[in-house]
Amino acid sequence: VGISLGPNQYGKAETHLVRVTRDGDHHQIRDLTVTTALRGDFAAAHLDGDQANVLPTDTQKNTVFAFAKELGIGAIESFALDLARHFADTVGPVEVARVTAHEAAWTRIVADGIPHDHAFVRPGSEIRTATVTVRGRGDDQQAWVVSGLRDLVVLKSTGSEFRGFLTDRYTTLAETDDRVLATSLVVQWRHDTALPTERTSSDWDERYVRVRERLLTRFAALHSLALQQTLREMGKGVLEAERCVSEIRLSAPNLHHFLVDLQPYGLDNPGEVYYAADRPYGLIQANVLRDDDAEAGLAWHDDTAR
Amino acid sequence: VGISLGPNQYGKAETHLVRVTRDGDHHQIRDLTVTTALRGDFAAAHLDGDQANVLPTDTQKNTVFAFAKELGIGAIESFALDLARHFADTVGPVEVARVTAHEAAWTRIVADGIPHDHAFVRPGSEIRTATVTVRGRGDDQQAWVVSGLRDLVVLKSTGSEFRGFLTDRYTTLAETDDRVLATSLVVQWRHDTALPTERTSSDWDERYVRVRERLLTRFAALHSLALQQTLREMGKGVLEAERCVSEIRLSAPNLHHFLVDLQPYGLDNPGEVYYAADRPYGLIQANVLRDDDAEAGLAWHDDTAR
Amino acid sequence: VGISLGPNQYGKAETHLVRVTRDGDHHQIRDLTVTTALRGDFAAAHLDGDQANVLPTDTQKNTVFAFAKELGIGAIESFALDLARHFADTVGPVEVARVTAHEAAWTRIVADGIPHDHAFVRPGSEIRTATVTVRGRGDDQQAWVVSGLRDLVVLKSTGSEFRGFLTDRYTTLAETDDRVLATSLVVQWRHDTALPTERTSSDWDERYVRVRERLLTRFAALHSLALQQTLREMGKGVLEAERCVSEIRLSAPNLHHFLVDLQPYGLDNPGEVYYAADRPYGLIQANVLRDDDAEAGLAWHDDTAR
Amino acid sequence: VGISLGPNQYGKAETHLVRVTRDGDHHQIRDLTVTTALRGDFAAAHLDGDQANVLPTDTQKNTVFAFAKELGIGAIESFALDLARHFADTVGPVEVARVTAHEAAWTRIVADGIPHDHAFVRPGSEIRTATVTVRGRGDDQQAWVVSGLRDLVVLKSTGSEFRGFLTDRYTTLAETDDRVLATSLVVQWRHDTALPTERTSSDWDERYVRVRERLLTRFAALHSLALQQTLREMGKGVLEAERCVSEIRLSAPNLHHFLVDLQPYGLDNPGEVYYAADRPYGLIQANVLRDDDAEAGLAWHDDTAR
Repeated sequence: VGISLGPNQYGKAETHLVRVTRDGDHHQIRDLTVTTALRGDFAAAHLDGDQANVLPTDTQKNTVFAFAKELGIGAIESFALDLARHFADTVGPVEVARVTAHEAAWTRIVADGIPHDHAFVRPGSEIRTATVTVRGRGDDQQAWVVSGLRDLVVLKSTGSEFRGFLTDRYTTLAETDDRVLATSLVVQWRHDTALPTERTSSDWDERYVRVRERLLTRFAALHSLALQQTLREMGKGVLEAERCVSEIRLSAPNLHHFLVDLQPYGLDNPGEVYYAADRPYGLIQANVLRDDDAEAGLAWHDDTAR
Repeated sequence: VGISLGPNQYGKAETHLVRVTRDGDHHQIRDLTVTTALRGDFAAAHLDGDQANVLPTDTQKNTVFAFAKELGIGAIESFALDLARHFADTVGPVEVARVTAHEAAWTRIVADGIPHDHAFVRPGSEIRTATVTVRGRGDDQQAWVVSGLRDLVVLKSTGSEFRGFLTDRYTTLAETDDRVLATSLVVQWRHDTALPTERTSSDWDERYVRVRERLLTRFAALHSLALQQTLREMGKGVLEAERCVSEIRLSAPNLHHFLVDLQPYGLDNPGEVYYAADRPYGLIQANVLRDDDAEAGLAWHDDTAR
Repeated sequence: VGISLGPNQYGKAETHLVRVTRDGDHHQIRDLTVTTALRGDFAAAHLDGDQANVLPTDTQKNTVFAFAKELGIGAIESFALDLARHFADTVGPVEVARVTAHEAAWTRIVADGIPHDHAFVRPGSEIRTATVTVRGRGDDQQAWVVSGLRDLVVLKSTGSEFRGFLTDRYTTLAETDDRVLATSLVVQWRHDTALPTERTSSDWDERYVRVRERLLTRFAALHSLALQQTLREMGKGVLEAERCVSEIRLSAPNLHHFLVDLQPYGLDNPGEVYYAADRPYGLIQANVLRDDDAEAGLAWHDDTAR
Repeated sequence: VGISLGPNQYGKAETHLVRVTRDGDHHQIRDLTVTTALRGDFAAAHLDGDQANVLPTDTQKNTVFAFAKELGIGAIESFALDLARHFADTVGPVEVARVTAHEAAWTRIVADGIPHDHAFVRPGSEIRTATVTVRGRGDDQQAWVVSGLRDLVVLKSTGSEFRGFLTDRYTTLAETDDRVLATSLVVQWRHDTALPTERTSSDWDERYVRVRERLLTRFAALHSLALQQTLREMGKGVLEAERCVSEIRLSAPNLHHFLVDLQPYGLDNPGEVYYAADRPYGLIQANVLRDDDAEAGLAWHDDTAR
């Protein structure tokens, strides 16, 4: 009985670059961490150590830097599309190219009320993400674009219940009609596949701002009966507002805030002092889909270990 | 056009427990971090906030602790199987239960040549893992078991080449016939589906030791022409030796060690001083499969965002 | 020859709490991670294991939660002062009590232009800090207050030089008159010791905002000849503006951004594409002091390992 | 009233290198992360941006690599001494040079019972440390050497009590005569100042092994009445055995393991199932000193923010 090589990919992970665009003294910057992964005809490298088909990961890194210069960097979706198409178009053995970009935001330092020309401050740890997968070349080429964000940390100090749940022998949790609800969101939304090349960087950037805004406002507005319900409402809100978003996936740790028992010291605690626990944490993951959506294709597909 | 709920799951992540087994003064300990995830008939929670079908994640955590007492903890594969079956068997709305356990190793402190009865030291950061997925109940129940390890860091100071690779306009890398090869392995191997219940904790533990040993010795022995080749040889070695392993997935960052240029100071550097870089890093992922293997089923299946 | 117990302290580290203040439907939250450390007459615990003088760290944690309820939480300096004084005043063996608080910022989610009553988003990873040290009790009690911030990440895309430096046999660095300057600041400023109790939470909060603003604007405005100069100017700017700040300490990793060499691909790179390196990094640390300042006393004093 | 520059230092942090020593096919490796810091006549850089006295941190990094080649790397104490002396001896403005080295251990992969010539595995996350401080040059030069380790994680599953402690209004903790005691040690020991240059790498390496062994065996052997007592016994044990160690500093988080209450499910829990908590944690820090010890001098001295 034989043994075969299964799905595989390789690339350069986490090339971290800052691109400065200079308009005289007025600068713009974009701060990206880019990961490339190639799939295709690479069996010989695995079976015989033959590298003839292997474009070095070092070259992939070089390409990221060179494209940052040649094309500039607008929206990360556009930049990732350019890179992924380049690998699919020009590297013979490549069948599928996936490029992921993580963008850290920077805002201008405001001095005496004036945004500075070239001094910036990182507002936070939140990350904007894009994952682009391109298959084939020429007329048959297909591209899937997934946008997202990571580490968007939100909290409601009231307006959240958890009641009426299933119980069994091991259940000790009390019902509550007023709890703190907090989470650090990982959200990814898949765009329809129509003509991603016709979308400009401005389109992607504006859509990103709208989706993020929609996620936040739905989180704030909904009286939550469960984190599940909150996630689905957030996802539904995005799909209703953005016709070009086909699917959205949300992953939300339930960052538990436990009401501290202060009775031993003769104090009550009507929803005022909470212990913010680290582990364990609930983890709720949900996808929301448009019914008439085309196939997701390779947008999410990854058969390898992580 | 409608909007639907897609794949979803929920559970309790990273319940960290230490189980002490006391045989008089002689203790054994196992240190586990357990994550549970349930899939099934939970649409009402998402759509209406109705929790009637939702067993709280707090209960799942309680169950982990209670099972640690009632059943003890042998191999993490056995413990995860027990837990996953419990959720699939007894929680009505559950269709699929997945339990992941990460185990940190502890060894006895040796004092005056004698391993101590109840004092232990953590030998390292390496983690043993198990992911068990159970679908259905009764006679139709199926179970898939994946074992693994994380953060196994290995290095060869010679016996590694990288030559004859594909080049393009962006290639600047020089060929080398002697480089440092280092990686931090994430490996997972899927067991055949036959009768996992008949396997004892000893079976799982012994197989783990053998697989780990085989991975290390193949890494050491092979003259590497590429990290791809090394991974495939390691995987093939495991499959050849372990008839009950159906598939193995390896993910290996190429932890680059760059030879430092010492010529500016009048020094040569014949493979002696290397700069250990952080980012970017190559990332090579490869699966190796047995040809006649049954379907992987739900062993790896996860449609949610992370 | 004898062996003695040297300096020692003990306490509870990183009690993470969220305090909700409810004004009807309008909530305010403060998110603190508090560490307590006690020094004093604890030799018996070390020498004989006698705990008679040891207030458990668990009690210290309880006290943090109870004070959060009883006193509420205004500025972290005020809260840390209350806690440190409590331990110094009421726990017999305590000679010195130090309380450190780290505060994570939260801002209101704005929906339809209206800041929400009880829904919040974490704007970033930046942390506000306070370290209060109290010695003695009654009329002899002294208190030192140090405020600060961590992880304030700033970048200038131009307006930074590095030239005219000392060279030796091992120097290869080229001079530059235009580089990216980026750092992640850790800054702590010590307040004069006059009457900290008369300062209100508003005083501390407003001073924090002014110091942070001053740090940012000086960073932005100064044409930098060296990170050393930038730090000293930032510190001097704070001392000039804040009469009650006696000393400021700045620690600044030089987050190197290296201009990528694109010549191999026929591209120039006039300050546009930078590689953001992780390690190694320069590390510049500088203190700036008011000449007539009173002694720093125990404000910074810590003789223990970390 | 004037404003002055206070204590300051600068250097290159975390230069990560691997040094291979080749004896034919048999290799040895040492994996170091080196941080340099220089103090001295650097006021002009801070005040005027004048770099004439500033040896670039880039040069310091280069020197680390060059010395790794020229001198080889034996014990990290020896290597740090060589580097610190170099900066103090040859860089005019330098008054004090401090070099810290962190070493990650590697062990040979054993294949078929034979330790491999050039294939290695990292046994764990534990780190060996050395901090060397050198002041002055020529006959007046002084050197202080501190050795240490980080992240040595140990646990006792019994043989630990916590009773008879001080209580106040906020105390709720129950006494216990059998608990799990676990910690992740940071330990540093200061060597006497006599002739560190006459010590060979073997001396340092052997002393390190003995101290680590002594720490472990004392931890294991002592029936603990308090973590304070355990730390002092560990420190005392080292000082008694090592005449050339003048002082030892231990910092130990109390990694709480809480007995899980299983009564709600009708189960008892006689010291078997523990929840391993993350935060908060007790933090115990203690120094142990030799009475007739010479002054510590600059061994620990650092006036800057971190």
